[in-house]
Amino acid sequence: MDSKAHMNPINRQWRLAARPQGMVTESNFQLTEGPIPEPGEGEIVMKSRFLTVDPYMRGRMADRASYAEPVAIGDVMTGQSAGTVVASRSDRFKEGDSVLATIGWQEYGALPAQEARRLDPTQAPISTALHVLGMPGLTAYFGLLDVLQAREGQTIVISGAAGAVGSTVGQIAKVKGCRAIGIAGSDAKTRWLTEDLGFDEAINYKSTPHLFQALRACCPDGIDGYFDNVGGPVTDAVIGQLALNARVAICGQISQYNLDRPATGPRLLWNLIVKRATIRGFLVFDFESRYREALGDLGSWVRDGKVTFKENIIEGFESMPRAFMGLFEGTNTGKQLIKI
Amino acid sequence: MDSKAHMNPINRQWRLAARPQGMVTESNFQLTEGPIPEPGEGEIVMKSRFLTVDPYMRGRMADRASYAEPVAIGDVMTGQSAGTVVASRSDRFKEGDSVLATIGWQEYGALPAQEARRLDPTQAPISTALHVLGMPGLTAYFGLLDVLQAREGQTIVISGAAGAVGSTVGQIAKVKGCRAIGIAGSDAKTRWLTEDLGFDEAINYKSTPHLFQALRACCPDGIDGYFDNVGGPVTDAVIGQLALNARVAICGQISQYNLDRPATGPRLLWNLIVKRATIRGFLVFDFESRYREALGDLGSWVRDGKVTFKENIIEGFESMPRAFMGLFEGTNTGKQLIKI
Repeated sequence: MDSKAHMNPINRQWRLAARPQGMVTESNFQLTEGPIPEPGEGEIVMKSRFLTVDPYMRGRMADRASYAEPVAIGDVMTGQSAGTVVASRSDRFKEGDSVLATIGWQEYGALPAQEARRLDPTQAPISTALHVLGMPGLTAYFGLLDVLQAREGQTIVISGAAGAVGSTVGQIAKVKGCRAIGIAGSDAKTRWLTEDLGFDEAINYKSTPHLFQALRACCPDGIDGYFDNVGGPVTDAVIGQLALNARVAICGQISQYNLDRPATGPRLLWNLIVKRATIRGFLVFDFESRYREALGDLGSWVRDGKVTFKENIIEGFESMPRAFMGLFEGTNTGKQLIKI
Repeated sequence: MDSKAHMNPINRQWRLAARPQGMVTESNFQLTEGPIPEPGEGEIVMKSRFLTVDPYMRGRMADRASYAEPVAIGDVMTGQSAGTVVASRSDRFKEGDSVLATIGWQEYGALPAQEARRLDPTQAPISTALHVLGMPGLTAYFGLLDVLQAREGQTIVISGAAGAVGSTVGQIAKVKGCRAIGIAGSDAKTRWLTEDLGFDEAINYKSTPHLFQALRACCPDGIDGYFDNVGGPVTDAVIGQLALNARVAICGQISQYNLDRPATGPRLLWNLIVKRATIRGFLVFDFESRYREALGDLGSWVRDGKVTFKENIIEGFESMPRAFMGLFEGTNTGKQLIKI
């Protein structure tokens, strides 16, 4: 096969070498090499062009109860790729087709053709299937519109607002006529949110002397909806100023993922009585039956320029662990991707 | 008026003397005397036969943000009474009628006739309007059926299960075909729950060496619904073993009301993602438009013996502060009432 002649003759993988104790380090990962897989009957082999690192992957590295099985020691780390079909034994795809699939942290992967999603590079760059037109965008969509039930005129606060999910939440909130208040960790991020994405206000929680009061200044009538990616003290400051009948969507708790032991914080349940408020944890997978509807909306907002995005791209497969660790250091603005 | 000849010639009140610092003490209250009020046009004067003490009253004693205004220093403590009309200048009621009204902690009170609810002593003892056929019963009803959306076959855990609200929640849960697990603070209480009220299991959280494991033994498939009157470590133990799509109703947080400062505890929000769980705070007043429907159901369950109750009665108006403090010491099983 002619195309194979141009391929890297080996396949590389990042495997889980050891479970992290506290903060993730490079030593938790091992780079391995192996043959490029051959497709079985009904399968395709794809080459990753873009890989993604997402905060949820930290949960898969730990051996504790969660919503999905942990990655076993020695297994390839889990994750999605956007790339190209390089071999096919299925009628569904031919070589050269663009696809999205969950093949883990590796350069090549074989999978049943029906588990791949076709991408149309003439409609949108294939990398967007890893963020605004993929899982992070869907998470933003359902979290804001279903879990928070955001309505015109409401004040919506978003933590982790400069990440792939949070930045989309705020933009959809603006499409729906809400006030969008972002919380992020640098002045560059807060400027991006207000100047480029149309957030009404953004707060740098690292530099503000008093987050509670900064939020109060932005939200004098209280907070109707809170989209939480972060948890910890940022969330404490928000929960104390919910409006009546407020809703809180717990999407992620990135401030907590690298802690040695579960953290303590102020007890917050009394607030929920006072404000008749609701807190709900959710996963995007719970809304799978409605992905098509949501991707239709997201696609049209992206085409109309109502929802934009930023990609923070690191080149080279070998950079994946470093890119992943950067998520917890707040180095990315927008979506962190790895390009091969 | 002949009936007045038999009355105590004075009216006594319990007033808020000072805001509590930590645990409530008798010195927070002051007993005062005054004239028995005369009814204005359209008003009635009622004599309290039964007064109630409820945990929510602790919140009214504190000068901090809550869902209702605090009682001012020097004002009569707030609360409902069940009693008898002793004077009327309204067509709605005549002397001798039984009524329920919010006149505060006093022996006599004047109020507009439309603010009193007529009670029929031939249908149920008038004291029941202060518990199973009143606010605590309604709280149990809407918390279980609306906030928790309890359904047949679900496992429902109730903290403060031997109180007026909790004991009713568990019995309604049994009417609806749920498993009811009560958490209470003495063996006498847990025996009452399982032997008299039909709870499937009850745990004495004070004597069990490990509440988490005791709950796990009762709820091997997780907890579908949690009706929380208590908060604190009891709630921590429950939140750690919610079932998928569990719901939590925050009705009260009695373990927290007498603390000097807000307590800390383990952060719990991550659990909500793992289990796609919802926590909602509620007040019975939010369901006011449906009280009639609920009282119809509760009344029929009481008549059929499906929902029973226990009254813990202290005699004498002068005992009110002591009865109130007992709520926080767990001295009452069932509804704490004061009889005059």
